[in-house]
Amino acid sequence: MEDIVSLCKRRGFVFQASEIYGGLAGFWDYGPLGVEIVNRIKAEWWKAMVSENDNIYGVDGAIIQNPKLWEASGHVAGFTDPLVDCKNCGARHRADHLAGTDSTDLAELKVLLKDKVCPACGKKSLTEPRTYNMMMKTWVGPIEDDSSVAYLRPETAGSIFTNYENVRETMRAKLPFGVAQIGKAFRNEISPRDFIFRVRELEQMEMQYFIHPENQDQAYEEWREFAWKFLTERLGIDKQNLQWHEHAENERAHYAAAAHDIYFNFPQGFKELWGTHNRTDYDLSNHQRVSGKDLQYFNDATRERFLPYVIESSVGVGRMFLAVMTDAYHEEDINGDKRVVLKLKPELAPYRAAVSPLLKNKPELVQKAQEVYKTLKNEFGNVMWDDNGNIGKRYRRQDEIGTPYCVVVDFDTLEDDTVTIRNRDTTKQERIKITDLEAKLC
Amino acid sequence: MEDIVSLCKRRGFVFQASEIYGGLAGFWDYGPLGVEIVNRIKAEWWKAMVSENDNIYGVDGAIIQNPKLWEASGHVAGFTDPLVDCKNCGARHRADHLAGTDSTDLAELKVLLKDKVCPACGKKSLTEPRTYNMMMKTWVGPIEDDSSVAYLRPETAGSIFTNYENVRETMRAKLPFGVAQIGKAFRNEISPRDFIFRVRELEQMEMQYFIHPENQDQAYEEWREFAWKFLTERLGIDKQNLQWHEHAENERAHYAAAAHDIYFNFPQGFKELWGTHNRTDYDLSNHQRVSGKDLQYFNDATRERFLPYVIESSVGVGRMFLAVMTDAYHEEDINGDKRVVLKLKPELAPYRAAVSPLLKNKPELVQKAQEVYKTLKNEFGNVMWDDNGNIGKRYRRQDEIGTPYCVVVDFDTLEDDTVTIRNRDTTKQERIKITDLEAKLC
Repeated sequence: MEDIVSLCKRRGFVFQASEIYGGLAGFWDYGPLGVEIVNRIKAEWWKAMVSENDNIYGVDGAIIQNPKLWEASGHVAGFTDPLVDCKNCGARHRADHLAGTDSTDLAELKVLLKDKVCPACGKKSLTEPRTYNMMMKTWVGPIEDDSSVAYLRPETAGSIFTNYENVRETMRAKLPFGVAQIGKAFRNEISPRDFIFRVRELEQMEMQYFIHPENQDQAYEEWREFAWKFLTERLGIDKQNLQWHEHAENERAHYAAAAHDIYFNFPQGFKELWGTHNRTDYDLSNHQRVSGKDLQYFNDATRERFLPYVIESSVGVGRMFLAVMTDAYHEEDINGDKRVVLKLKPELAPYRAAVSPLLKNKPELVQKAQEVYKTLKNEFGNVMWDDNGNIGKRYRRQDEIGTPYCVVVDFDTLEDDTVTIRNRDTTKQERIKITDLEAKLC
Repeated sequence: MEDIVSLCKRRGFVFQASEIYGGLAGFWDYGPLGVEIVNRIKAEWWKAMVSENDNIYGVDGAIIQNPKLWEASGHVAGFTDPLVDCKNCGARHRADHLAGTDSTDLAELKVLLKDKVCPACGKKSLTEPRTYNMMMKTWVGPIEDDSSVAYLRPETAGSIFTNYENVRETMRAKLPFGVAQIGKAFRNEISPRDFIFRVRELEQMEMQYFIHPENQDQAYEEWREFAWKFLTERLGIDKQNLQWHEHAENERAHYAAAAHDIYFNFPQGFKELWGTHNRTDYDLSNHQRVSGKDLQYFNDATRERFLPYVIESSVGVGRMFLAVMTDAYHEEDINGDKRVVLKLKPELAPYRAAVSPLLKNKPELVQKAQEVYKTLKNEFGNVMWDDNGNIGKRYRRQDEIGTPYCVVVDFDTLEDDTVTIRNRDTTKQERIKITDLEAKLC
């Protein structure tokens, strides 16, 4: 993990948020190279999910919604962690972690924690465990009181459910159809950790698929397959780094009847990356009850009226970014030298190619290289000019940021309009005509 | 305005956030068609700003940052509105609005409000005016006290300044260079209004351009020109709907030495759309002072060491969306019938084309139309299948959502592989070969 964190910082992928102020635990900023990868991941997901499917519609909901939404969804009551406070030093701890258990049952935790001391001060002065809500709270409007409390959404799904009827009606959508969204969510984690894996501010890509209840098994399988294919085919992630994990009953979120995660082989081990959940009619029935609005679907042909079931497909952008980086990260020995190389799928790389003059103090080489650079930049957009240091150092730097090709203009170029093109993965160089470059990089 | 709000709701561009719970003032959700336009606007800005410029770098910073950032930036002290409370009924009002003035000077407001009554209860029981901070507050971590207070960013610029040195170093950037960001910001407006114009949750596209102080006038002009060109050339907005507005001294934000806005002719009148501001070294000098980190730039060639000045280019995504919609919205009389048509630039339209069978109950027409649809969808991505109602109604509906072309498959198509293609703006129809469709839609 240290290697990846260090590379991310050193090369401008990810910085600590407000680093000059000592940072803030659980918050991260994407730097110039990171944001390009993140944007490509999001665009690819939107394309595969929304643009290529006739029956999936996008939305972009507000982060702050009417707080009744989170009462209906069960998050006000149920999106909690068990905590204990220390009456001596004021420190607060996750009760389940302290008890060394996965259980969040308060009675059970009370028994397990009976003789524990506070890990911060060592005193036997812990309160009984109680639940702590992980939603981040704020106030809307000028008066800070109970009537103006609102929450930063803990998941994007909420505004998909509240917009279900709006989307169905305006798009004249018929079951099965899905509503997809990319956006930020917030979780007041007690102990954010593992770099960008467990954070307090995250970005999600979620899709809720509304179906007739009798199609739940088939739809569940379809969206499990979608997730697997997206990771392996669209992002090029090695199957060896992926595993299916079926949630046991005590692992499942409060709304889920069945849940399968794809685990990825992160630096800290195989952990949750992408969830496919059967949320049944849990959400629509609760929103119908609390809002008093009829959210039933009416099938013209069968004259049937019912609440659709929902299959959810949910993945975090940050975790997907970390998976892509981890999967691509390689250390290799090249003639006794270690090289770090990011073997990113070329479509995901921050730069498609780097263009260099062999020597930066030869104006005729620089001018010719600039011509090549401008042509390629015009064609691909993400092409980099690199004239720092010698060619060997440039290759190492481009390897580290995953640039698939380095193009070098030298004195022969001035004679015969050929350049050296060097392949990131094989480190092999070949000589090709400038006019063949575009096709080569495609 | 009512016409645009109604169209946005009716056709799935913009919904009230959590509408089934009565909404929440100042928060809006983009629906299936709105999110497509918003995504195209953001992608076009990123392309023009980041991808096409060698010296502009993107970032994506967290919404929640270390609160010291906002102390240094002056927002904790200065991002305020003047308010009065009613001691009788508890209502809170904007003091400047109540006094009918643009001034936010508390002494002046006190005099003006001396004899005013509360507009809510009619009693003469208003407090003296005081300042009210518009940043939305939350807590990070399990304990809600002063030490854990954090703010939802009021502008994206903050994390650009705190990342200035990280970007410069990792990208080996030399002045002048810029850092660009798209992301959400929050302002606890007392009276959100004018649909999506003045909201509490907004999305910004901001770029901070770091320069030698002696180049401030030139850079300022460059970025004013960029904004104007982007709106007129990239988004195709009518120049008649745009005006320059130079901020008077009392209008400028606390950090700005000069500010020019482009005003757009919104339904409620000409109002601020895109700001170009000279922030001088206000931000970097404050962050340097408060963080204790040296943020000076060192010019190798001249051996000069100094704090860069900053020219800011800042525009709201929601306002740009509203400008695009307003600019495109037309009501026309067609043979005595009113038609509503969105004359969007084709690149911004939610759908590039709609494909229909002339009659939906003729399987041979439906099958042929599906073939045409799949070919075009495969090529363009955003192509719609539309078999609802009769052809006239389909045209009206496609006009309302700005679809540039409607393609209709009829019985002649089965004979000669030609289709009818109907132009949104001219309403003219022509007959062309299926094989010429792709070129026509480009």
